[in-house]
Amino acid sequence: MTLTLDAAQTIIKVALDHGRAANFKPLGIVILDIRGAVKAAVLQDGSSLSRFDIARAKAKACLAFDRGTRAFEKIATDRLHFFIGAASAVEGGLVPVAGGVLIRDKNGTILGAVGVSGDTSDNDEAAAVAGINAAGLVADGG
Amino acid sequence: MTLTLDAAQTIIKVALDHGRAANFKPLGIVILDIRGAVKAAVLQDGSSLSRFDIARAKAKACLAFDRGTRAFEKIATDRLHFFIGAASAVEGGLVPVAGGVLIRDKNGTILGAVGVSGDTSDNDEAAAVAGINAAGLVADGG
Amino acid sequence: MTLTLDAAQTIIKVALDHGRAANFKPLGIVILDIRGAVKAAVLQDGSSLSRFDIARAKAKACLAFDRGTRAFEKIATDRLHFFIGAASAVEGGLVPVAGGVLIRDKNGTILGAVGVSGDTSDNDEAAAVAGINAAGLVADGG
Amino acid sequence: MTLTLDAAQTIIKVALDHGRAANFKPLGIVILDIRGAVKAAVLQDGSSLSRFDIARAKAKACLAFDRGTRAFEKIATDRLHFFIGAASAVEGGLVPVAGGVLIRDKNGTILGAVGVSGDTSDNDEAAAVAGINAAGLVADGG
Repeated sequence: MTLTLDAAQTIIKVALDHGRAANFKPLGIVILDIRGAVKAAVLQDGSSLSRFDIARAKAKACLAFDRGTRAFEKIATDRLHFFIGAASAVEGGLVPVAGGVLIRDKNGTILGAVGVSGDTSDNDEAAAVAGINAAGLVADGG
Repeated sequence: MTLTLDAAQTIIKVALDHGRAANFKPLGIVILDIRGAVKAAVLQDGSSLSRFDIARAKAKACLAFDRGTRAFEKIATDRLHFFIGAASAVEGGLVPVAGGVLIRDKNGTILGAVGVSGDTSDNDEAAAVAGINAAGLVADGG
Repeated sequence: MTLTLDAAQTIIKVALDHGRAANFKPLGIVILDIRGAVKAAVLQDGSSLSRFDIARAKAKACLAFDRGTRAFEKIATDRLHFFIGAASAVEGGLVPVAGGVLIRDKNGTILGAVGVSGDTSDNDEAAAVAGINAAGLVADGG
Repeated sequence: MTLTLDAAQTIIKVALDHGRAANFKPLGIVILDIRGAVKAAVLQDGSSLSRFDIARAKAKACLAFDRGTRAFEKIATDRLHFFIGAASAVEGGLVPVAGGVLIRDKNGTILGAVGVSGDTSDNDEAAAVAGINAAGLVADGG
């Protein structure tokens, strides 16, 4: 099973709806497939310049270590020097706060990752999870 | 006037529809706003690894010189050394073939650019133009 | 089906044997999985400094466009400006001469790519093909 | 004396055997020669996307300062700002935790470095040391 564009577009639509309904600040949302390629992305109106880059680096952090960024955040704060080194080694960098969520299928296989950035990290993550659930897939925020 | 996410999503939807109706190969479509930030992107199922990068570098080439890549292609071939230097100087590179299209408003003001890659360059451009027209904006392929 | 390390090591062993038997110059051999991640690599004694980078960029060129570098070479020479732009857009660059070979399974599905560099391009390719065949997979040099 | 491919392949074989016998998580193993060129590498099945990059950046950290990453970790934590600067200055970055091990000959001359990533840092280092010892060389983890 692979991540289809249909699924990716559902994730984005529902994550946007979630953010609008909850009155979040403008979100950047990036979905990477298992190769780390950008499968789909949106930037809400009013987003600051680097929002896409931050959202992508959250999703990349998920794939880099096969875990959601909520768990990666603990590693990054416990062993800051390791995190800094890893971020220096991975193209495009790594952002280690909540809002990067692995996309798994029902069997637990990783299909890709979503990165959301723009509001609080917890809210970013909630938007990603809402989207993944709506696509009938399993969200793993770490 | 700025490029709204609504307009970007219309461009992508119609460009995808255009490609499907004409039986194009899988497309990568990237829309950049006037700052060069990724406003929206999609990668059709079956796309090769670098399709997003190529599409983005077509759109980037438009913004780099305020002209569509059809015109930039002439510059790139006439003065290859200049193009090589420019591509080496711009983050993410520049792809100088048709399929990069400036998005202008009715007054000619540049709002952003679309890059499409996956089929022939002419077909890539046609998908981008269809999308921009559908959004009520003006396509400038160069 | 995915590219296993066992298969990758068979490819490398047989490609090295091929080169030694035919008295090739020292080879760099890099195998990328479908994500573009380095699955396995070797550098024969006496290799010049950038041999790994060149071999990897041959394999990357295969995955970038889903075709072996023998076919990509024709595109690169026919439309040099396109190739230069693509190489500027893809992380790690692209080397467009024979010696980059797609690894397919029996059904034609792409599993990864091999890049070989060190001797003539034709010889580089022959070593890659020998390795892929020995692993029971299908070589697609383009 | 230089690091031969034979020695590098022994290191990798024994490091892999060590990890399998001890039931480690999938490992990425990268060996750099004294120039920093990738001499040999493997990625075990099931490795996450950036495992090669992390392993290489451990080996690179060894060569960057002629010391194993166990010692470099102390520097990185004692003078974090120095480490951050160094990681930003070195192509491919630096990962400053155990698992990067210098390869020395019997006279102490540095021949290259091994980086291992995938399990705990201590286990990663143990696999590297086992491999270097098996090749009749001297492991310097720092």
